[in-house]
Amino acid sequence: MSYYFSKTVNGNWDNAREKVTEALKEEGFGILTEIDVKATLKKKLDVDFRPYVILGACNPAFAYEALKSEKYIGTMLPCNVIMQETQDGHIEISAIDPVASMQAIENDQLGKVATEVRSKLQRVIEKL
Amino acid sequence: MSYYFSKTVNGNWDNAREKVTEALKEEGFGILTEIDVKATLKKKLDVDFRPYVILGACNPAFAYEALKSEKYIGTMLPCNVIMQETQDGHIEISAIDPVASMQAIENDQLGKVATEVRSKLQRVIEKL
Repeated sequence: MSYYFSKTVNGNWDNAREKVTEALKEEGFGILTEIDVKATLKKKLDVDFRPYVILGACNPAFAYEALKSEKYIGTMLPCNVIMQETQDGHIEISAIDPVASMQAIENDQLGKVATEVRSKLQRVIEKL
Repeated sequence: MSYYFSKTVNGNWDNAREKVTEALKEEGFGILTEIDVKATLKKKLDVDFRPYVILGACNPAFAYEALKSEKYIGTMLPCNVIMQETQDGHIEISAIDPVASMQAIENDQLGKVATEVRSKLQRVIEKL
């Protein structure tokens, strides 16, 4: 089962970052966290890794619904969107499919929320 | 399938936060991100929610192995540990089971890493 939606975009890193922020905003997501994987791996392990950033995206209304229906769902929030440099120098942007990551959880109400969030994240990627 | 490990602890919030930070450190995890869910929901939706915090925990060496074996695994990193107030005023601390959240991904090498990280996070919760 595929667990993410993905698209490779042209342009530089900052433009791509702006595009994804805007596309997320249009679907009601803010970015709550940001992890610079390349910098973290360099600092902690002194290894070189390609540019790779993890953005923690959250649509508050849907997060609230998920939290009300599943007490421990915070272990899978926020929904991550990652940006990474491809081998040919482009930028690939990928969003988690929450239906895939949450498939171990048997909860119909949560399943409905996850399906709606999946559609929103899929649209975010399509718009890029 | 259960998707988290959990324990309810006595004491106040700050003590619990210190305990979990220390237990994570002993297993090689740093905390890269922190989301105050209660404050975020109040600010964005003006709703009241119980104290609930999402900590993004990362063991750099294992994250590096995971990233090398599965290009898009950043959509499921870091590993979350959540703290929430229970109805009777205690604090429950729960860690994601990465084997459960990553079960949609068919990748044996990743599976080995996830199994090792699961053991580490299980020990973190047991130690509390």
